[in-house]
Amino acid sequence: MPPGGLDQRGEQLAALAQLTHERATDPRVADWLATCEQSPTLAADPTSDTAVNLRWWRHQHDRATKLPAALVVEMSRATSAGKAAWAAAREASDFGQFAPSLKRIVDLCREEADAYGVPEGGERWDALAEGYEPGMTAAGVAAVFAPLRPRLANLIARLADAPTPPSDAFTRLKLPRNQQEAFVREVARAIGFDFERGRLDVSTHPFCSGTHPGDVRLTTRFADDNVNDALGSTMHECGHGMYEQGLPTEHANTPRGAAVGLSIHESQSRLWENQVGRSAAFWRWAHPQLQTFFGDQTEGLDHAAVVGAANRVAPGCIRVEADEATYNLHIMIRFTLERALLNADLSVTDLPGAWNAAYQRDLGVKVPDDARGCLQDIHWSMGALGYFPTYTLGNLYSAQFFEAARAALGGAEMLDAQFAAGEFAPLLGWLREHIHAPGRSLTSDALCERVTGQPLSPEPLIRHLEEKLLPLYGLNV
Amino acid sequence: MPPGGLDQRGEQLAALAQLTHERATDPRVADWLATCEQSPTLAADPTSDTAVNLRWWRHQHDRATKLPAALVVEMSRATSAGKAAWAAAREASDFGQFAPSLKRIVDLCREEADAYGVPEGGERWDALAEGYEPGMTAAGVAAVFAPLRPRLANLIARLADAPTPPSDAFTRLKLPRNQQEAFVREVARAIGFDFERGRLDVSTHPFCSGTHPGDVRLTTRFADDNVNDALGSTMHECGHGMYEQGLPTEHANTPRGAAVGLSIHESQSRLWENQVGRSAAFWRWAHPQLQTFFGDQTEGLDHAAVVGAANRVAPGCIRVEADEATYNLHIMIRFTLERALLNADLSVTDLPGAWNAAYQRDLGVKVPDDARGCLQDIHWSMGALGYFPTYTLGNLYSAQFFEAARAALGGAEMLDAQFAAGEFAPLLGWLREHIHAPGRSLTSDALCERVTGQPLSPEPLIRHLEEKLLPLYGLNV
Repeated sequence: MPPGGLDQRGEQLAALAQLTHERATDPRVADWLATCEQSPTLAADPTSDTAVNLRWWRHQHDRATKLPAALVVEMSRATSAGKAAWAAAREASDFGQFAPSLKRIVDLCREEADAYGVPEGGERWDALAEGYEPGMTAAGVAAVFAPLRPRLANLIARLADAPTPPSDAFTRLKLPRNQQEAFVREVARAIGFDFERGRLDVSTHPFCSGTHPGDVRLTTRFADDNVNDALGSTMHECGHGMYEQGLPTEHANTPRGAAVGLSIHESQSRLWENQVGRSAAFWRWAHPQLQTFFGDQTEGLDHAAVVGAANRVAPGCIRVEADEATYNLHIMIRFTLERALLNADLSVTDLPGAWNAAYQRDLGVKVPDDARGCLQDIHWSMGALGYFPTYTLGNLYSAQFFEAARAALGGAEMLDAQFAAGEFAPLLGWLREHIHAPGRSLTSDALCERVTGQPLSPEPLIRHLEEKLLPLYGLNV
Repeated sequence: MPPGGLDQRGEQLAALAQLTHERATDPRVADWLATCEQSPTLAADPTSDTAVNLRWWRHQHDRATKLPAALVVEMSRATSAGKAAWAAAREASDFGQFAPSLKRIVDLCREEADAYGVPEGGERWDALAEGYEPGMTAAGVAAVFAPLRPRLANLIARLADAPTPPSDAFTRLKLPRNQQEAFVREVARAIGFDFERGRLDVSTHPFCSGTHPGDVRLTTRFADDNVNDALGSTMHECGHGMYEQGLPTEHANTPRGAAVGLSIHESQSRLWENQVGRSAAFWRWAHPQLQTFFGDQTEGLDHAAVVGAANRVAPGCIRVEADEATYNLHIMIRFTLERALLNADLSVTDLPGAWNAAYQRDLGVKVPDDARGCLQDIHWSMGALGYFPTYTLGNLYSAQFFEAARAALGGAEMLDAQFAAGEFAPLLGWLREHIHAPGRSLTSDALCERVTGQPLSPEPLIRHLEEKLLPLYGLNV
């Protein structure tokens, strides 16, 4: 958007927010829901498609009616201005420029949480998180993160001291963008993204937008000197996209046909990006492809070099550039800080200091400036507090789902052989049946229990990381 | 859009059409309008901003309420499917694939015209054209076109027989796309497109979309071997864009701050594309720029060569590739045919034959296939019958406005000297004041009378073409 469009965009978004809120809270919706809920047939079987839809429509309607229209419009205006202020502040690397906007947004988020109602024994964060991942609470997230953090820290420390880290030669290779693009499009096709029902384009920040299983649009990005950046972004977004394409078309535009929540969505992107895309078996297939797409430019690289480059672990200050292991520490820092902001245990003014201290303590890195510190992510400027943990929950679900898929599909050796042969359809088929087809008929917790037989646990992710990374670094598991 | 999204898109558009129609026809709007119209102050002065807005809101509301909601939804579905059918048929160059959709669309257009009401002594075409250019009628268009056609035909015939046509060497030069892009961006900036309040991107079919004077988005396109294609597209869209940027911001989102209609909009694009961009004076400035942007690649071209290349006249079968003179014949053919379709003087089945015969008769070209014949334009597949003549009316207005501007700004010599020095601000300033600032406070006719002192006439366009083209072809005016 050109700078001159800012005010008008703010008004447009505020008008849309008001219209959407008016429709969502129309008293007739409550009447319709009550009528259906009292029907002896429509809601009798709680597992029926109708009952699923009624439950979610009730959830959405009740939640929407708790928010005053004025607050909805205020929040829309504040985040519209906030995004612009954030972008300018990040450009100037000056948190002070963004602080007043963020203060306003945090205040409105607290109002919003109070309007939704803080659950018994819970906190404001929970009321907001419910909008991204129903059922997620700060206490629940903290309980999952607590055992994960020391084990990740221990793993990262061991890798940092390893005498023979894998080479990063592959990710320092300058490769022409058109060749990179041809390569990642072929990978997208091979793993199962359906281009008849989707597109892949380019943007600064990759994303997946799906309005219907027949029209799923992804973007990726390209770095001159690191094809793994484009590959990882593409496989990640394809994971989101294949989930959207796998949702039941016959239930499109209803909760029954929608994604469960952001954590399960993220589990699908991470599974393809990490469990598949960074595996030795995947590179058995992908490595020979390099010759086709890049010719002589990659001929000096052996299998170990490409697998190693995809799995280098190095603490840094930028979340979206983080490796598979340190990534989760970035999330934990954000979770702690946004929780403190909402509980008024941290003031917006003190955010940069708290951020930088946390990075020094947990990742051992010195944050050089605000742009690479607490201004790096757009989320808070959009009012999205309560969102970040879904990324790490997604990582946990992806590892746990992948273990279940592997067991169901004949074990690690079988799945590895399939990947090495470029056969990803069995895995996608399993995901289609067990994760995609159910839509929102189960909560994330219930889906996890049904699919894996266990509640969500940090063990599979830790197992996955340790069993893969330690040997690559010449260390014992 | 991926093919899989087609049905869902159709449903989305139909739902939006229905919602928009519901709001436009809300009975409360009629009450509000009646109250305001009876106010002794609000509408007392018919030239006041309020009176202008009330008149247009009344016009829009009355027009919307004449259409049954079911017809609006039907038309949305039919054109949504129609665009897809058209694209597939054009790809296959097979009109038969599109014919059933077009038949349905023409039938719905006839229904729509009947719902709007055919004006006394008028025809169905008029009722539809009112939506694109208020006040435009088929009889009125025919009366303007009648004297234009033989004089254009005569001019084109003289040019075709000229012994020394200008060289087309410049438009056969292959120039790198990134250099072309830098060049056209500089031209856009120089003529006055404000990049603080707009963007320029790339698309297959160039367009201008403006939602507010502060956010005007243009696209252009690039041909490897014809930089004039990109230059013409860019200047054309900049003309649309500078009109949008020049509309009064304080009246944004009301008729008072909106463009008059499509003809006046097109007059602004054509004025910059043709009256400016194809003039010898413009090239006095632009020619030395070529050295900066293309270096040695263009050094063999003298001033006469670049001006000549911009002004080659050659009948062909594609409208959007047509030169300034033959372009209007393409429009006249479309007008005659769509009028006949709406009057049921021509059946959809007979369209390709009638099209090809008209091209042979009026332009002397043989249409090789449907793709380059009656399938070349998207308009009818969108239900836009009654639209095409606004393009030629825009050409006529542009020539007439330009004569008025030239007289007001000190005459041809003065304006030429400004262009040659890269000074386009005086012309833009005149357009801002006389054409842009009034918004929709006057009709096209009234604006033309006020600005030029005359009703719309074919004379200025004919003068412009004859006085420029004949000497370039070594002929006497």
